[in-house]
Amino acid sequence: MQNSLVFLPLGGSNEIGMNLNAYGYGTEENRKWIVVDCGVTFASEQHIPGVEVILPDPEFLTGVKEDIIGIVLTHAHEDHIGALGHLWLKLEAPLYATPFTAELIKDKLREHNLIDAVELNVIPLKGEINLDPFLVEYVTITHSIPEPNGLKITTPLGVVFHTGDWKVDPDPIVGENIDVEALTKMGDDGVLAMVCDSTNVFVDGQSGSEGAVRKELVKLVSEQKGKVAIACFASNVARVLSGVEAAKHSGRAVCLLGRSMVRVVGAARKVGIITDAVFVEPEKASTYKDNEILYLCTGSQGEPRAALKRIAQGKHPSLNLGQGDTVIFSSREIPGNERDIYDLINDFMLAGVEVVTAHERAIHVSGHPCRDELAQMYSWVRPKIAIPTHGERRHLIEHARLAQSLQIKQTITPRNGEMVQIAPNGPMIVDEVPNGRLYVDGNTIIAQGAEILRERSKIGENGVIVIMVSFDKKGRIVGGPDVRARGIADKNGEPLGDTLDVIADIAEKTIDKLTIAERIDEEYCENKIVRSIRKNIFDIIKKKPMVEVMVMVI
Amino acid sequence: MQNSLVFLPLGGSNEIGMNLNAYGYGTEENRKWIVVDCGVTFASEQHIPGVEVILPDPEFLTGVKEDIIGIVLTHAHEDHIGALGHLWLKLEAPLYATPFTAELIKDKLREHNLIDAVELNVIPLKGEINLDPFLVEYVTITHSIPEPNGLKITTPLGVVFHTGDWKVDPDPIVGENIDVEALTKMGDDGVLAMVCDSTNVFVDGQSGSEGAVRKELVKLVSEQKGKVAIACFASNVARVLSGVEAAKHSGRAVCLLGRSMVRVVGAARKVGIITDAVFVEPEKASTYKDNEILYLCTGSQGEPRAALKRIAQGKHPSLNLGQGDTVIFSSREIPGNERDIYDLINDFMLAGVEVVTAHERAIHVSGHPCRDELAQMYSWVRPKIAIPTHGERRHLIEHARLAQSLQIKQTITPRNGEMVQIAPNGPMIVDEVPNGRLYVDGNTIIAQGAEILRERSKIGENGVIVIMVSFDKKGRIVGGPDVRARGIADKNGEPLGDTLDVIADIAEKTIDKLTIAERIDEEYCENKIVRSIRKNIFDIIKKKPMVEVMVMVI
Repeated sequence: MQNSLVFLPLGGSNEIGMNLNAYGYGTEENRKWIVVDCGVTFASEQHIPGVEVILPDPEFLTGVKEDIIGIVLTHAHEDHIGALGHLWLKLEAPLYATPFTAELIKDKLREHNLIDAVELNVIPLKGEINLDPFLVEYVTITHSIPEPNGLKITTPLGVVFHTGDWKVDPDPIVGENIDVEALTKMGDDGVLAMVCDSTNVFVDGQSGSEGAVRKELVKLVSEQKGKVAIACFASNVARVLSGVEAAKHSGRAVCLLGRSMVRVVGAARKVGIITDAVFVEPEKASTYKDNEILYLCTGSQGEPRAALKRIAQGKHPSLNLGQGDTVIFSSREIPGNERDIYDLINDFMLAGVEVVTAHERAIHVSGHPCRDELAQMYSWVRPKIAIPTHGERRHLIEHARLAQSLQIKQTITPRNGEMVQIAPNGPMIVDEVPNGRLYVDGNTIIAQGAEILRERSKIGENGVIVIMVSFDKKGRIVGGPDVRARGIADKNGEPLGDTLDVIADIAEKTIDKLTIAERIDEEYCENKIVRSIRKNIFDIIKKKPMVEVMVMVI
Repeated sequence: MQNSLVFLPLGGSNEIGMNLNAYGYGTEENRKWIVVDCGVTFASEQHIPGVEVILPDPEFLTGVKEDIIGIVLTHAHEDHIGALGHLWLKLEAPLYATPFTAELIKDKLREHNLIDAVELNVIPLKGEINLDPFLVEYVTITHSIPEPNGLKITTPLGVVFHTGDWKVDPDPIVGENIDVEALTKMGDDGVLAMVCDSTNVFVDGQSGSEGAVRKELVKLVSEQKGKVAIACFASNVARVLSGVEAAKHSGRAVCLLGRSMVRVVGAARKVGIITDAVFVEPEKASTYKDNEILYLCTGSQGEPRAALKRIAQGKHPSLNLGQGDTVIFSSREIPGNERDIYDLINDFMLAGVEVVTAHERAIHVSGHPCRDELAQMYSWVRPKIAIPTHGERRHLIEHARLAQSLQIKQTITPRNGEMVQIAPNGPMIVDEVPNGRLYVDGNTIIAQGAEILRERSKIGENGVIVIMVSFDKKGRIVGGPDVRARGIADKNGEPLGDTLDVIADIAEKTIDKLTIAERIDEEYCENKIVRSIRKNIFDIIKKKPMVEVMVMVI
């Protein structure tokens, strides 16, 4: 049997987010695996009621668990490390991460009581990991979080460059510039395939720089006379430090609001990324004059429980904003969150607060490469094969087209679960493995498409009717039918009233037609009643509620 | 008592859409009203599960029903006429509309069995309606639907110009150009207040023209070699006719797909807006060669039941698209629909279909005025008072700022329910009346904030537990407790299994502690069991399901 090198996306190749990738080397019977990233995606209620976090389904990797040599993390964004706590027990391999990323991973492992079980190896920037038959080297890139890395993966059949999330930021503020030398050297030596970020493939030009954002934030804050709150993603430490810089220029102290803000800044301090910044405790911030304080907040996406939303609704314990104050959104609108964000802005405007967003001022840049940057990367690395990842279908296809226009002759756009043979004779899809999504629900995980999710959506949309009836052993009704309804309105818009009697009548008429034997067969009788209610209810209320019947023979 | 002129927005002044406005004239005790527009807004599941259509609450107007002289409709968009069928019985006044609008209103009245009850007066374009003490004149403007109108409302205390939805389209294709002469004349004669569209107040420049879109569509279609489907809003008859024109240029026949497409085209034909276009029936379209047919479809927002989504999923009875075919989105993404639209595009790209959107080609223009157009309107009408409407809070406030920069010294931004006295001594808010939203749910209407909606959301997110137990008259358990659960997963992600027994145990232990009298008091006993389950369940499943207990004493 011939050895081959394969790439397998299990998340992130049907969507932006939820990254879970694997590289395999060996024969079909005896293949060793490394996993790259293990992230989540966030669901809004519109998808699955009650579910906030979605995971990639690792079923295939669980099946080859013994052959996973390591899990390598590129950087600390939730869509790259957020599923580790949920899924590690299904993978059980050592973790490898750079110092800042490792700090944030520790938090997750602690939350899931895994901190003692997991081997977490901290690798220095530009360090290498020997995961024979793979040699993995961290390559410094730039992104919107400290310590972003691409991975140079060397195998006996050639080199793959896995970009991770990246951009070309000429002035990243935190960390080094993108390592053009290493990328060009890699290209000179020959790269078989590049697995590359597709997020911004529809955006022309360049994504811009954190340095430019800092200048504009400094200017914008200096124009303000009242209290100022800047909302940004906590993980963007460069942005947080730009907020600090802007405050300093205007003689303002800085107060952090929001748990993830405090957590990320703590991690950055621990690994020496933040050294000298001083922050005011929220309870002391109110002792400062309006023009001597600046707040850095989470909640730029309008998340209902985040600091910013509570401030907007006047419900925050330590900050109240009004006429003369300013909220600065140093962030973008993640698709799907627009409605929540606009509602948040409306809340502030209703309170007379000035709102400034990236639509009006240049106070945000994306962390992902636009088309010019993609072209630059291809010119540095010059892979034989382009494998777009980190995108929806439309992004991957457009990315492949762009790569082709850049003279990358071989492109392939696998979906989650499609195994790509890179070498020999690649690229080609050689297998499709189980794949899908898992939904975190309370303290359990539900598989995509599970009946339980459909059931819950149905109840949420249509409400539920519960009917209880008791028979004696001779099939005579001794109690009920009692009918209850939840989440269903009557003609007047109030909870079901007279209609409950109508439903009870339908149940009774159904029972009348049953023999004694049928009545005291609880399951049979329940089914009969369920069916007759279902058949009639839509005509009455124009909805299809869930019907639960409990028959008791006593 | 002095006569006054008031403006009262009941919908559309906290949101874009759901327009319901009223103008009142008279003393506080004896005031006559006209209603302007009566529209809906659309809810996504993320807001209220099971609710698709949202109405403005007309409670205040219902209270003054006897004094409503007429309901005047500006144009036929759903957010201006869509609530007529639902709310007319609460208003019961004659309707006034121009011919095309009247055609589409008739459809709604028929659906609600109101066609014989309602007096629907058809007014010619530029016609006037005497609704003493109001004189209402239709002023031709341009928008994205046939027969868009502003309303010049003359009262003994002065003239108000109610713009309706408008833009300045130099080449609207259907209908006349905006009536600059009438607007300027009105300005010369003196306008007290202008109530004006705020939708695009954050957009610089101009919205562009249907004529330009037509040219680009003709060009784009001529480049295609396979089947072509154009998605656009059915109500934009100019756009539909541009699709027809593009087809003609490329020697293609045209087929309409989607019920609202057929309905609107039918109405346009009836009133003479469409005269000579010929359409191929869907079942015959497949007999045409790929490059000899063009489809005009509904569903540009990714609506699950619309033509386009079904085509994308390969489920449409008469159209199948694949490699070599093209879908053209001659539309924009309505905020909140992004996710559905991107999913739709992904579906097409997965099938190899080429997708062209307004991001790549200039194939869509907005129907609402951008900042330059707003400035133009203010220079024509020169009102003393600017009253921004048709917007969220952020739009109205920005619009007021813009008006002030244009030397309109008096601006006021009432919220829904805030009554503005325009004259004498206006503008000022003189009253706040009941206002809010109504949710259409099956065949009933539920008030905003009703417990039933919270209940349903809660069940949808957390599932429901039902417990049944029977006692004899001595308080001895003769049946149960039986426990059922819906929409709740066990540790393994499957429907609740062993946990049902745990819940039954909790119920039994609670019952054990009750006296006979407490047990046979059904309500008391139910409450006790509900409370003990609620208290314990979160620790077990980390969710808070709805708990319904039925106790039966027999």
